[in-house]
This record gives sequence, C-alpha cells and structure tokens, in this order.
Amino acid sequence: GDLLKLSRWSPPRFLVTGFALIILLGGLLLSLPFATSEGTGLRYLDAVFTATSATCVTGLVVVDTGRFYSVQGQIIIMLLIQVGGIGFMTMATLIALVLKKRISLRERIILQEAMNQHDMEGIVRLIRRVFLYSVTIEAAAAVLFTLRWAADMPLGKAAYFGVFHAISFFNNAGFDLFGEYRSLTPYVDDPLVNIVSMALIILGGIGFVVMAELLDYRKKRRLSLHTKVVLSVTATLIVLGAAVIFILEYTNTLAPLTWRGKILASLFQSVTPRTAGANTVDIGALRQATQFFIILLMFIGAGPGSTAGGIKVTTLATLVAGVHTMIRGKEDIVIYEHRLAKDRILKALTITMLAIGVVIIVTMIVSTTDQDKPFIRILFETVSAFGTVGISTGITPHLSDIARIMLALTMFTGRLGPLTLAYALGGQTEKQLFRHPEGKLIIG
Amino acid sequence: GDLLKLSRWSPPRFLVTGFALIILLGGLLLSLPFATSEGTGLRYLDAVFTATSATCVTGLVVVDTGRFYSVQGQIIIMLLIQVGGIGFMTMATLIALVLKKRISLRERIILQEAMNQHDMEGIVRLIRRVFLYSVTIEAAAAVLFTLRWAADMPLGKAAYFGVFHAISFFNNAGFDLFGEYRSLTPYVDDPLVNIVSMALIILGGIGFVVMAELLDYRKKRRLSLHTKVVLSVTATLIVLGAAVIFILEYTNTLAPLTWRGKILASLFQSVTPRTAGANTVDIGALRQATQFFIILLMFIGAGPGSTAGGIKVTTLATLVAGVHTMIRGKEDIVIYEHRLAKDRILKALTITMLAIGVVIIVTMIVSTTDQDKPFIRILFETVSAFGTVGISTGITPHLSDIARIMLALTMFTGRLGPLTLAYALGGQTEKQLFRHPEGKLIIG
Ligand SMILES: [K+]
Ligand SMILES: [K+]
Repeated sequence: GDLLKLSRWSPPRFLVTGFALIILLGGLLLSLPFATSEGTGLRYLDAVFTATSATCVTGLVVVDTGRFYSVQGQIIIMLLIQVGGIGFMTMATLIALVLKKRISLRERIILQEAMNQHDMEGIVRLIRRVFLYSVTIEAAAAVLFTLRWAADMPLGKAAYFGVFHAISFFNNAGFDLFGEYRSLTPYVDDPLVNIVSMALIILGGIGFVVMAELLDYRKKRRLSLHTKVVLSVTATLIVLGAAVIFILEYTNTLAPLTWRGKILASLFQSVTPRTAGANTVDIGALRQATQFFIILLMFIGAGPGSTAGGIKVTTLATLVAGVHTMIRGKEDIVIYEHRLAKDRILKALTITMLAIGVVIIVTMIVSTTDQDKPFIRILFETVSAFGTVGISTGITPHLSDIARIMLALTMFTGRLGPLTLAYALGGQTEKQLFRHPEGKLIIG
Repeated sequence: GDLLKLSRWSPPRFLVTGFALIILLGGLLLSLPFATSEGTGLRYLDAVFTATSATCVTGLVVVDTGRFYSVQGQIIIMLLIQVGGIGFMTMATLIALVLKKRISLRERIILQEAMNQHDMEGIVRLIRRVFLYSVTIEAAAAVLFTLRWAADMPLGKAAYFGVFHAISFFNNAGFDLFGEYRSLTPYVDDPLVNIVSMALIILGGIGFVVMAELLDYRKKRRLSLHTKVVLSVTATLIVLGAAVIFILEYTNTLAPLTWRGKILASLFQSVTPRTAGANTVDIGALRQATQFFIILLMFIGAGPGSTAGGIKVTTLATLVAGVHTMIRGKEDIVIYEHRLAKDRILKALTITMLAIGVVIIVTMIVSTTDQDKPFIRILFETVSAFGTVGISTGITPHLSDIARIMLALTMFTGRLGPLTLAYALGGQTEKQLFRHPEGKLIIG
C-alpha cells in the first residue's frame, strides 16, 4: 500500500503510469535469453510488444507464443495476463488486505477509477469476492481443459496447457500455446473446448460488478439496471453476430464443417470479438464483409470494469437509446424504464469519439508505413488492438516497427480507456465561473 | 403552390416523396433513346442511378456522362442538378412568388425543413436572394470557363461546357463532360480552372444561410455563431486537408507535377471532398492512407442547408465541443463564447450515429455482393454517395446491380439527411406523459 500512498497524482495518472511500468519491466524479462526457447533472446521492441499485449490482455503477437518462448517466458506472459487482467489495482488492494493495512480514501478512489464503480462502498468486499470467484472459475476450466487435452498430449503438458489457457481465456487475453498462430482452429467442432472457452470468455467479459451481482442473485432476486443492460446487449450481440457470421461464411470458411461445426464456429467467432482473441477459424480467410462485421463487434467490446477494451456495451446502449429518444421526439433517455442522467450521453459520446479518433489516427499511420497490406486488414488489427481483442488477419507479425509501436500504444489506450488516458495526460479540469449566452447553431 | 397545399403529410415525408418522384421521372427521361448519343437508350436501373446522382447532386456515375449521353441527355442532367441543388422546395416557392400567391404557413414549415432554418421569418426573402446570388455566380463562372476553354475547343462547345460545369460545380454535383471519367485531371495545374472551380465549390457548400449573411456583411458588420462555425471549420478542414494530402501524396500522384501543380492539386483534392465530386488527380491512384483520409473528409461534408451530404461541419463542431467539455469537466458546451442548448448534442449525436449506421450497412452489403473489389474502394464509394460527393476510385461503373441500387439509396439518404428520412419513415413523435426514475449505468 506504500506505493499508493507515495503518489500525489490523480488516479488516472497513477493507473497509466503503473500499467506502463509493468509493461516495460515485463518487456525486459521477455527480451532475455532464458525467456526464449532457443536461448537467443528477443529484440526489446518485440518483447515490449508482447508484454503490452499480455498486460493489456489483448493477444496480438509478433512472434509465435507456443514455439518462440521457453516455458519460463510463457509463465511470465501468463503472470502479466493475470496481473493486467484482474487488474494491478486489485492486486495492490489484495496485498494491502493480506497485510491487514487499512485501505485509505485515496486508494479507494484509485480503485473506483480502476473498476469504474460509481460509489466506493463495497469496493473492497467486491474485490475479495471477484478474486475468489475468478480463481474458482479458472481452476474448474483448467481441470476440464486438462481432461480434454490429455487425449492429445502427455498429461503434464495437458495440465500446463489447461492452466495457461484457462487463465488466458478467462482474462480474455487471447494468447495460446498451440503454435503457428493456429489458436483453437484444431478444435473448431470440439464441443467441450468450445463451450468451456466461450463460458470463460463471456464470464470474464461481463465485468466484475455484473459477476458479483450474479453471485448474489439467488439471495437478492433482482438485478441492477447496469447488469440488465450488460447481459441483454451481450446476449443480443452474440446471437445476432453468430447469425450474420453464419450467413456470410456459410459457403466460405464454414463450408467444410459439419452442422455442429458450423454452429459452434459461428457462435465462437461471434463471442471472441467481445474481447477474447482466440479463434476457431482462420480470421484471415474470412470474407471481407465478415471481417468488417467483426471489426464493428470488436469496436464495441464487452462490459465496463472487465478485461475488455472497446467502447463497452453500456456505451452502445446509451448511444442507441439517445438516438431513439431524438427520433421519437422525447425528452428523457430511457433504458429499461430508468432515465439516464443528462451527462451520461455526453460521456458515451466522448468515449465513442475518442475511440473513433484513436482508430482513425492509428489506421492512417499504419496505412502509410505498411502500404503493401490491404486496408481492411490494417483496420482489423487496429481495432483488434483498441478493443484488446487480439484476433488477427495474420499481418501483425509482418508489420513495420512503427506499426508495431502504434499497435502497442493502441492496446494500451484500449485497455485503460481513451477517456482515462485523456484525463491522465491533459486533464486539468477547469471550474466554470460563468455561463455564456445561448447561441443558435444549425445542425445536420 | 397547389401541389404543396394538396399534401397533408409531414414536411419530411413530403420532401422525401418529392425528391423520389423527380428522380423516377428523370430516370425515365434518361433511359429513352433521344437522351443517349448512340440512340440506344439505357437500362432503367442505370438511368435512375444517373438521375439519383444528378438530383442528389452527387456525381457518381455508371456510364460516361460526356460520351454516352446526347446533348439532350446532358441538359436533362443539368436541369436535375439545378432542381435538386438549389432545392425543389426553393423552386416551388419561387413559382409561387412569381405567381404572386401567398406562401402558406404549411409551405413555410416545409421550406424551413428543406433549408434547415430555425425560424421561419425571412425564409421567403432568403430564397429570393439566394436564387439571384446563385444565378449571378453561375453566370460569372460560366463566362470565365468559356474564355478558358475556348483555347482548347470550338467557342460553342466551350460555352456549353462553361454553363454545364458552372452549374455542376456550384451545385457541388460533380458531373463533368470531359469523358473517360477524367473529370478535371487535364487541368491539374491550370490556375484559372482550379481557382474558379474551388470558389464555386466552396461558395455552394457553405449553405444558403451563410451565403445570405455574407451578402449582408458590408451592412451589418457582424456574423452569426452559425456562420462563424461554418466558415472556420470549412477553412480548417481545407488547410489541414491540403497539408495532409500534400505530405501523403508528395512521392505518389503529386510526383510528376510542378510546385504550383502540387499545391493546386493538394488544395483541390482537399476542397472536393467537402461535397463537390470533381477531381484533378486520379482518385484511384491515391495511396490507401490518402483515400481513407478523404473518406473522413467526405463523411463530414459541408454546411447545413447547402448541397452537401455528410454529417455537416456544424455537427462536427458540436461533437468536438462536447468532447472538450467532457474532458475539461465543464457543464456547458461552448463554441465561440456561446453555449449550445442541451438538445443540440443529442441531435448531433443522432445524425452522426445514423450516418455511421447507413455507411456500415451499405458497405457490408456491397462488400458481400462485390467481393472482388478492395474494401477501401467499396467504403470510399459508399461514403462518397452518402456525402453526395461523387469522387470515385473507379469501381462504380463495374458494380453489381444490387450495389448500384444500394449506392442510389445512399445518395438519396445523404441528400435528404438520415434524420429527415427517419422522421419521414418512422417518425410518429410520442408525447412523454411521465418521467421514469433515474437509473445508474456505468459507461466506458
Ligand atoms: K483479448
Ligand atoms: K457532389
């Protein structure tokens, strides 16, 4: 807890700096010879790219995780995922709890920022529960994976793969050890691998607050507006997404599969853009219409206070509700019979505009430095980085250094949120001392 | 005026239906043998595409305007441009004025909708002035063009070209008669053609209200907030756009040009995406980063109440001001020391979201029907249609029929504005009888 007390910075600045330090340290470790299977070491730039991808739970890679890194390197990646995923602020609190130190107000505010919670009450309790819940789910999934993969490989390796992928998928980190950038494609119609992976991804993506509320549901028998919105938008996106992917890919990547395979693959590719980063069909082989559709899903992301990047499902819901209000000529923005405070629409707008801005600037730069790559693939990798999703059309390992740096910065921005970053970098809030007269402006 | 009085429809529905009827009639005329230079006639679908492009002052074409159509066909196109550009509502009012009929309240409301004006006062006066102003500018430009082109072609043809292109460029219609889809590329470093064309495009794109105010400036010596915003955003986009295009294209399309040519070409290609549709370099030969950048400019468009599509520069200004307000933690959205009414941000958001939605849906469909075309080019043509810009990467004449229909619908949507269309199609506004309790939603 001392580290926290030392800081006089604003919570956003603290978060940004903390993440950056973990990434630079992780990059240093991953660049050393012991972390690589051939003992050759790795360029610091590429090692930092990997560390950023792991810490920001993305999954974009410039080297083959399964083949290039030694077991030690892979464990470092796994730890960076767990630290970046459950969140380094959460970790700091847990340490403080273990050491029985009191959680100060300042620390609570930082946590509030990290978990994107409205009120500070119960944050500490929430963190304890989320930690237990996460470990339980990861352990259960690791056991199921181990049992399945023991059929394909030695038990020891199966157990290692089980733990690594349970952690990677629950944190929606997208890293895998199968080699040759295959991700889960060998298991495209395997029900157990598909269902366990999708369950991990969805549970990890709905966000800690929703997780905690679902754990309480049997007692309380009611869900908050927030949880209702996250669950309903997530469910809608998964079902709608699977239907669109099924239709667009029926005669393409789904063609060689059985009906079960077709349905599982449509569902999996609809679930993964939420923020996961694993894939069961070759993303680079998808039609460009499908790739564009997945770009949209990745841009939205999952729930706030989760491991997701993107603008988040609640932001989407607010925007859609706002448009509906305007078209219907109503006053209040209403979701599930609750009206939203006036400033909510401005926050949703700001996050979306900043997100669009980041994607545009990065896409422009990478389109310039890597002119030989098709535009749709550059846009795909950029949004995959911003949404901390991690699925790839296959161009990331072949990008220029400038493009690698841009994607690393994009993952970082996506993980922390562009608004948090804006507050951290520029954000002196100004007091408004007087009101200007109202002006008329014709819009649209 | 009788036509107007007959209608009991809402103004948006009336506008939409009126435009549609003009397009269908224009398409019929353009499909007849007399309209084509070989006397072969044209498929109705392609003729309607041309009529839509002309009436919605876009400029995307599926046949070569200069070669395929007879002079009669070209004059029909010119009339559709003038009707659709200055606006068929304006025309209706002028007819009523000429016939000395009184303008009814209902008609004024329709005009208000058409010109996107806040108050109805002065609309009739405004229209008269705008008409005179437009004709004066078009005539002056026609004379200048004629003098220039008389050096390259017989005087009669030069005069015909002068009139056609003055009307086409002032209405930002993008149609040209130079043949082989060359647009103004033969005149890439011709100062007179460049400067007159850019002046026409900019004056036509700032919108009628701004035009009228500028005409009054010598008397009144002050500009409204609206005019200040339109002029400053337009100027910023032109200068910034030219700089970006200059940098990105320096070693590409600009390479063979002199310094004068480089600067003129950068400026022209920065001015044209506002909504014009003429071009002096081959758009298909631009780098994909430049094409993407121009897509963004086209999406923004020009001033409200102009011939532009897109979201309009005032919408952009409102969004940017909103983001600034949020980041600075302020209460009011302030532009040029005037605060905007709270509902303005919701309108700006709605227009932008609907615009993004239209572009996404059309791009998805055309990516599916025309899979062989690169994604960036499909996105380019879609946004060019939505922004009623009309510059093309060259794929439009080779698109499938479904894609042609989709682009025609997109031009129509872009010209009328997605919000007007939403009101026309769905828009029963609902009265809000009670307020829901406020709900908490975590955003972003
Ligand atoms: K991920
Ligand atoms: K145009």
